Amino acid sequence: MSREFVHERDLRFLLHEVHDLGSLTAYPYFEDHDRETFDLVLNTALKMARDRLFTTFRDMDQNPPCFVDGAVRVHPMVADFMKECGDGGWISATAPYDLGGQQLPRLLISACVFVFAAANYSASVYPMLTSGAARLIESFGSEDLKRSYIPNMFEGKWQGTMALTEPQAGSSLADITTQAQETGHGYFLIKGQKIFISASDHDGVENVINLMLARIKGAPAGVKGISLFVVPKKRVREDGSLVPNDLHIAGLYHKLGYRGAPIAQLSMGENDDCRGFLVGKPHMGLQYMFQMMNETRLEVGLGAAAIASAAYHAAVRYCKERTQGRRLAAKQAGSPPVPIIEHADVKRMLLFQRAIVEGSLSLGLQCCKYSDLSKTAPESDALKFQLLLELLTPAAKTFPSEMGILSVSQGLQCLGGYGYCDEFPLEQYYRDVRIHPIHEGTTGIHGIDLLGRKVVMKDGQALDLFRRELEDAIKTAEYYPELKPYAERLDKSLERLLEVTESLIPLKHSGRTELFLADATLYLEFFGLVAIAWQWLLQGTACDKMLKTNPPQTEFNFYQGKLYTMRYFFHYELPKTEALAKRLTEADGLTTEMHVDWL
Amino acid sequence: MSREFVHERDLRFLLHEVHDLGSLTAYPYFEDHDRETFDLVLNTALKMARDRLFTTFRDMDQNPPCFVDGAVRVHPMVADFMKECGDGGWISATAPYDLGGQQLPRLLISACVFVFAAANYSASVYPMLTSGAARLIESFGSEDLKRSYIPNMFEGKWQGTMALTEPQAGSSLADITTQAQETGHGYFLIKGQKIFISASDHDGVENVINLMLARIKGAPAGVKGISLFVVPKKRVREDGSLVPNDLHIAGLYHKLGYRGAPIAQLSMGENDDCRGFLVGKPHMGLQYMFQMMNETRLEVGLGAAAIASAAYHAAVRYCKERTQGRRLAAKQAGSPPVPIIEHADVKRMLLFQRAIVEGSLSLGLQCCKYSDLSKTAPESDALKFQLLLELLTPAAKTFPSEMGILSVSQGLQCLGGYGYCDEFPLEQYYRDVRIHPIHEGTTGIHGIDLLGRKVVMKDGQALDLFRRELEDAIKTAEYYPELKPYAERLDKSLERLLEVTESLIPLKHSGRTELFLADATLYLEFFGLVAIAWQWLLQGTACDKMLKTNPPQTEFNFYQGKLYTMRYFFHYELPKTEALAKRLTEADGLTTEMHVDWL
Repeated sequence: MSREFVHERDLRFLLHEVHDLGSLTAYPYFEDHDRETFDLVLNTALKMARDRLFTTFRDMDQNPPCFVDGAVRVHPMVADFMKECGDGGWISATAPYDLGGQQLPRLLISACVFVFAAANYSASVYPMLTSGAARLIESFGSEDLKRSYIPNMFEGKWQGTMALTEPQAGSSLADITTQAQETGHGYFLIKGQKIFISASDHDGVENVINLMLARIKGAPAGVKGISLFVVPKKRVREDGSLVPNDLHIAGLYHKLGYRGAPIAQLSMGENDDCRGFLVGKPHMGLQYMFQMMNETRLEVGLGAAAIASAAYHAAVRYCKERTQGRRLAAKQAGSPPVPIIEHADVKRMLLFQRAIVEGSLSLGLQCCKYSDLSKTAPESDALKFQLLLELLTPAAKTFPSEMGILSVSQGLQCLGGYGYCDEFPLEQYYRDVRIHPIHEGTTGIHGIDLLGRKVVMKDGQALDLFRRELEDAIKTAEYYPELKPYAERLDKSLERLLEVTESLIPLKHSGRTELFLADATLYLEFFGLVAIAWQWLLQGTACDKMLKTNPPQTEFNFYQGKLYTMRYFFHYELPKTEALAKRLTEADGLTTEMHVDWL
Repeated sequence: MSREFVHERDLRFLLHEVHDLGSLTAYPYFEDHDRETFDLVLNTALKMARDRLFTTFRDMDQNPPCFVDGAVRVHPMVADFMKECGDGGWISATAPYDLGGQQLPRLLISACVFVFAAANYSASVYPMLTSGAARLIESFGSEDLKRSYIPNMFEGKWQGTMALTEPQAGSSLADITTQAQETGHGYFLIKGQKIFISASDHDGVENVINLMLARIKGAPAGVKGISLFVVPKKRVREDGSLVPNDLHIAGLYHKLGYRGAPIAQLSMGENDDCRGFLVGKPHMGLQYMFQMMNETRLEVGLGAAAIASAAYHAAVRYCKERTQGRRLAAKQAGSPPVPIIEHADVKRMLLFQRAIVEGSLSLGLQCCKYSDLSKTAPESDALKFQLLLELLTPAAKTFPSEMGILSVSQGLQCLGGYGYCDEFPLEQYYRDVRIHPIHEGTTGIHGIDLLGRKVVMKDGQALDLFRRELEDAIKTAEYYPELKPYAERLDKSLERLLEVTESLIPLKHSGRTELFLADATLYLEFFGLVAIAWQWLLQGTACDKMLKTNPPQTEFNFYQGKLYTMRYFFHYELPKTEALAKRLTEADGLTTEMHVDWL
């Protein structure tokens, strides 16, 4: 059995049979592409992942970045990989031709990012951040900023970052205090500290371009006084040479996992000479930054699913090879032991992992397709896709992140004692995957974002669009007798979700905000389960369609595996919505009323 | 705020107000003791834990055991701690006076083991294993074996282990192949390999006494041909001196966590001179070993709860100190941020942890009380307590182990990015606690043990006794108006558990064993939730009783905190039984029918 970390057949199934990647070529932005280009891109990603990323995955964990003489040294593969990503056009892949991009669909490129992340999550972060930071300049920066920064970033010579968090301002960005003072010379002087900044210094690139939030002197308090700046590690002189920009690394964090990427503490302006260049208009920084934050959130979700995918493949391989015990039906001393995958409980554990991995990946790709459509479809449709994307982002980030932990943990469990030891990769996946419910907004923050903002925005329009998407999927699935019971289960869960929402909204309208949002995390969990069930029903429908064509044995096996995984999700996971619904409709103020000194 | 790892007030509450430790002194075995002795013992344990164990907790993780010149070196604290445990009578605490013990209740000593494990889980394992191994010799060994081994073990000079697992025989002990050949000279020659053996060699003691399963040449196949041997690292000559016993360490495992304790691979009889001494009768080994396995299972459950306890205390401390954001009801730019414990979602996260920790601890102590009673109560009662203990052991091991992972993970989440970094202890707790669903029988094995063996044994007598215990608790709680709704919820869940059991049993009787046990893990989860709810109702009842006495403010706060945690469990956790019940009654063969090549 090959040492796989993704299910290649599943990627093609999701891209083409479920999400119809080809349909995007009907839009002018993508019209130059076809199935052949798409396949070529995916194959190249798979080859890079196998050859360069997976082979260094353990080594990067065992030799994490180190901080020597004020600079950060990373694994030598980082320089090679950034160059390869630059040369291969991976960083600019979705950007328009006129900026050096290839106008490829995000749906496809995200599948490739998933492949990279499954092979080596830490490594995948370097080009991903660079791409997001460059596209932020592309969207809101001046022509001068675009010209000065984007080409080197797209070529992988310069690293991009997002620099938001400060010691006193993590979840609460309103409280950032990094200062920007106007100089009248086309730049601001930046002073302050940032913490937990990924890839903010390393020797795999020539320069690092931080997309940084700061407060212009005299700006209003709170989120409405935050501006966005380009703050390079080295600034560019007229002659093109690079000089230090008074931006110092104060230290690196020693992390549980995700060790191949440096997370640093930054200090700006210790010598009053750190220059920042304003992106767009003053005080609009947080609004701009949401572009990168929202993109990165989807990538975090896909990254969690990717690690869970690699863990699943390692687990399933072990379970097919390791023999232990006998089938319970034929237990008899002396009979030979069976591979543990024969045990029902082990199959259940594997189905759980697969349901999480492939359900999460499908939801992530669904969001990417909405993202593509929101940029290319005619205006009224575009708005619809934009709303769906905004509504689904908290779940597409959080469901894989939270469930990814459980999925990897179940993978580790499949290996018993070996799963706990570093001879096998499960223990690393278990450490790596734990970051995802934390970075790019904790689960609690996303719960509040979903219920407090997304569900109620524009009078509930987004939720209504979501309902219609699900109803369409349910109607189509009902044509297939085997799927009818599952379509009904989804329908019932959707109805329950809407009822729960209806019961909560009056709390908001009557000003009881705290009670309204007290269990927003549970609401997000509920919403995530329904969204994943929808994705599984879409997958089931695609399978049943193909099974009617009498496919050859390997294809038959693939579709059957899919259908059983779908069934697993509906029988074991979706029913969890009932307990959540029950709790969400109690609104008894248990956690809002409880005095903190009782804890 | 002090750096605590256990809630001392809670320990006294559980020991005295819930489980009535004092009542045990009515039995002759414990009649010499009183509340004063008990308090002294607990206070000493707390002091040892604070002074020696907690202070070395990080250092033992960072300096794990190493394998040098064929021997295992451990942290220097191990030698000191073993001596302290020997001198202080901790290893022999529950043993009878005539063997040098103190005849203390297991209920009390387990609370102390919990304290040790919360302070430093790895360290707590050394004396615990020694105690279990010595008591196994005590129960089944000859007078000669007792005399030769128990005193040095009780004194902490010799380490005890349980040596079961082999490369091809982990969950399936029936398949062990280590051989024992009778010599006619009072010993057997042992040959074979053992893996994953905790504390099986280290320089903190003079000798290691392995309680080892092996197969006497010509023994029947399967579990009925397994015998128990004492296989020392060094054997004792007539003159009392120690000589090597041809038992070699083949290597150490590098583990995700639990790094303060060495887990080794053993090779016996490479030079055909490894002597083993039969314990009890031939072929009875597995039956004997169950004494130590069952004791250790409870200790594993308590150990998981203990790590979760330490993580909870670190999290609650952080949440009271860290400020971030504003109360949602009074959100306003410019107002000062509040300690994050003020946020409803953070309180929910803390209540979850507390519900798991204190519910699990209570269940573990309940089992220990049954264990004490099964050895001291009049015969007919003793059998009842023995059956309850056997029935509850799988849940008392598994619920804390599985939920401990989630509890610690939630604690880590409370710290955000800091939780992921090694400046704070959460990341270590997260690694340490992951071992518990694996060692001493995986969760899957315990599911099968509960449903396939314990529930059906003696015509369901144990389950019936369990039902009666819960009904008693429900009846008592119903006197308190505030508890009535919770008593009703427990009653309903119990009824559902019995219904589900009734629906499953016919599958067994009709020989469909595989289908009967396919979701045994879910059954165990269901059972665990009901058992923990019962323990919370008992705790709630004890609180309401005391609240009627108008206690002073700090006591009032303690009881209120307890009651809110109880409410949390009933509102957020117990409802999960519904989804489990639904699945358990489907019996559709999803996992038994699925072909393995579809995965």
